[in-house]
Amino acid sequence: MLATSYTLSDTTTLPFDEAVERARQELQAEGFGVLCEIDVQATLKQKLGIEHEPYTILGACNPPLAHQALEAEPELGALLPCNVIVYRRDGDTHISAVDAERMLSIVGNEQLAPIAAAVRRRLADVVAHATGKNGRS
Amino acid sequence: MLATSYTLSDTTTLPFDEAVERARQELQAEGFGVLCEIDVQATLKQKLGIEHEPYTILGACNPPLAHQALEAEPELGALLPCNVIVYRRDGDTHISAVDAERMLSIVGNEQLAPIAAAVRRRLADVVAHATGKNGRS
Repeated sequence: MLATSYTLSDTTTLPFDEAVERARQELQAEGFGVLCEIDVQATLKQKLGIEHEPYTILGACNPPLAHQALEAEPELGALLPCNVIVYRRDGDTHISAVDAERMLSIVGNEQLAPIAAAVRRRLADVVAHATGKNGRS
Repeated sequence: MLATSYTLSDTTTLPFDEAVERARQELQAEGFGVLCEIDVQATLKQKLGIEHEPYTILGACNPPLAHQALEAEPELGALLPCNVIVYRRDGDTHISAVDAERMLSIVGNEQLAPIAAAVRRRLADVVAHATGKNGRS
């Protein structure tokens, strides 16, 4: 697993559509519903006429953790849901999740720390399992 | 206009539903499409049986700016779209937008700075106009 300054990321040999489906399944297994799904490729084509490689954003929410977080920080909806992205680039398929601890660090509310840690851990598992390198058997 | 560490925010005397509609209209006027809309109140009721005050998340995207940003930073979908939230709390209706400069600061990519500044400025205008305190006439 790779990490950027704000994501947990890995590549997969799965075909793109299958990778998206696996990400969806692994999110569900970790207690996250997908509240919105954005087809970036289709959006750029439709709005700007631009060709882009396949790129899907899954906006994921674990209801108990989201509820706790909003109780502690009412404005937090500005940063929700937590995204998992699946995209093709230079011949590879990437699956990445936002690093919830890094993202929520900008809020400056210590009550969020354990919630952010729990979300980060679960989304790291989603990436690890969805890429098929550390699969559930 | 108030600012938290990660949002630009104000209150409005508009009824909740009208505030959501105004936010949607002002986003459109600033070139943002709403790519996803999350009814937090309904989600918490459905998933957890919890009563929550009205709370809507509008996931907004300005296609040309989003395209520029993704060209500069392929993983950026993990932080998109930019949210405007409308929520009731303690008798007030709040309209807030994510502070795009603050959010994108965690990426550490200087190419994003002018894009983040443009998004921040436009979303500040959305909040100012949607609250009705600085309306378009």
